[in-house]
Amino acid sequence: MTFETTVPVRYRDLDPMGHVNNAVYATYLEEVRTAFFREEVGLDLADSRAVLASIDLDFRAPIEGTGEVRAVLDAAAVGGSSVTFAYELYAGGRLVAEGETVQVAVADGEPTPLPDDVRDAAERHRVE
Amino acid sequence: MTFETTVPVRYRDLDPMGHVNNAVYATYLEEVRTAFFREEVGLDLADSRAVLASIDLDFRAPIEGTGEVRAVLDAAAVGGSSVTFAYELYAGGRLVAEGETVQVAVADGEPTPLPDDVRDAAERHRVE
Amino acid sequence: MTFETTVPVRYRDLDPMGHVNNAVYATYLEEVRTAFFREEVGLDLADSRAVLASIDLDFRAPIEGTGEVRAVLDAAAVGGSSVTFAYELYAGGRLVAEGETVQVAVADGEPTPLPDDVRDAAERHRVE
Amino acid sequence: MTFETTVPVRYRDLDPMGHVNNAVYATYLEEVRTAFFREEVGLDLADSRAVLASIDLDFRAPIEGTGEVRAVLDAAAVGGSSVTFAYELYAGGRLVAEGETVQVAVADGEPTPLPDDVRDAAERHRVE
Repeated sequence: MTFETTVPVRYRDLDPMGHVNNAVYATYLEEVRTAFFREEVGLDLADSRAVLASIDLDFRAPIEGTGEVRAVLDAAAVGGSSVTFAYELYAGGRLVAEGETVQVAVADGEPTPLPDDVRDAAERHRVE
Repeated sequence: MTFETTVPVRYRDLDPMGHVNNAVYATYLEEVRTAFFREEVGLDLADSRAVLASIDLDFRAPIEGTGEVRAVLDAAAVGGSSVTFAYELYAGGRLVAEGETVQVAVADGEPTPLPDDVRDAAERHRVE
Repeated sequence: MTFETTVPVRYRDLDPMGHVNNAVYATYLEEVRTAFFREEVGLDLADSRAVLASIDLDFRAPIEGTGEVRAVLDAAAVGGSSVTFAYELYAGGRLVAEGETVQVAVADGEPTPLPDDVRDAAERHRVE
Repeated sequence: MTFETTVPVRYRDLDPMGHVNNAVYATYLEEVRTAFFREEVGLDLADSRAVLASIDLDFRAPIEGTGEVRAVLDAAAVGGSSVTFAYELYAGGRLVAEGETVQVAVADGEPTPLPDDVRDAAERHRVE
């Protein structure tokens, strides 16, 4: 079961080509991840002790002008101390980007087992 | 009659103190101004040929964490070639900032009469 | 005696008109203020316990494309618990904006006397 | 031969954990890419007609507080209509991130041969 949220595109997100700047896509992923942690785990992202290890983004189409982006998340893999989220971004009903991030649970600078509530939430949103 | 919109606070808006960074308040004003131009004038802000001449912001309270900001705009003054918008930002039902901007209509680098549709929209949202 | 720093304009600072977006000017003020606190007071801005009470910006000319902004700060007024900084931003040798901010020293949510090191640094950069 | 530039970290780049936010790393890559296009090709990035197809980032260490980031770029692959750039970001002498982007030359929405000046600049910075 996927998790999703809607992110309004801000005028400030646009660059000189009139498109949403590439770095802002990473913020859109962060918005759906933040909503996921808040609504499904009950945690502020800043309190999650999960460190972002990597982010991959494939751009499919420009996002032009202001409007809304639908951001969809699922858990692609759940490991001992890490979770891999997969993302799709849609604008105007069209897939505009796909992405993936890896979060690692960390304590004292070392990987540590994923907290149970994070693992449970991820498992509930795991898509085979 | 005031005009308003809702702006979700993004995790990216927060600074090391956990509050929305001051520069982002200017973006919140821009969001309600963009919505006003789009919905009340029928124009993209980038196509409005209105130049921002000044911005004043008084901060009343920090905006903590993510949530929503209610951004309210009215026209405080409508001149020959300029319009002054007044703003209030609310978070959690509390006034967190007041602001004012002056937009000037410009053609070939010189002030020019406000387009009728902008003037009409501003007059409809003028608050004495 | 004024204090100044140089801020490289980033591509991400530009908006669909190809100009630096208005909210980014507030960030340029923050950059010279941050450098001032770091170099003249020896403090991280996040540790300064100074709350931004207001910001005023007058835009004189657009900043087009990438390049550098010279950001100049002086202390316009030093009060019991607050300091008013005045700013000028230059691009290509031309004044592009003037600004002013008021910082208030706060402890437990109430105004408190300015710390001596902040007061001394401000007095050294006071311009009559 | 690699190409590099220095990017000052802004206070605005930091998030509630006091670290540079993940999306800002994409902006740091964009800064060295912009400098590369400006200095090695003689083009504004907005005029380069190169579309960003993907971005991959591996985070190695947090960037704490303000300071400088050294951003290093080389061309990992040069194809008929695309170029792959590889990046390393350093802060305090330490590798903090590695990245890769693919740019595709596009005309009328279709891939088109890389312009000669872009190809030549990329070949000069190709690292086997």
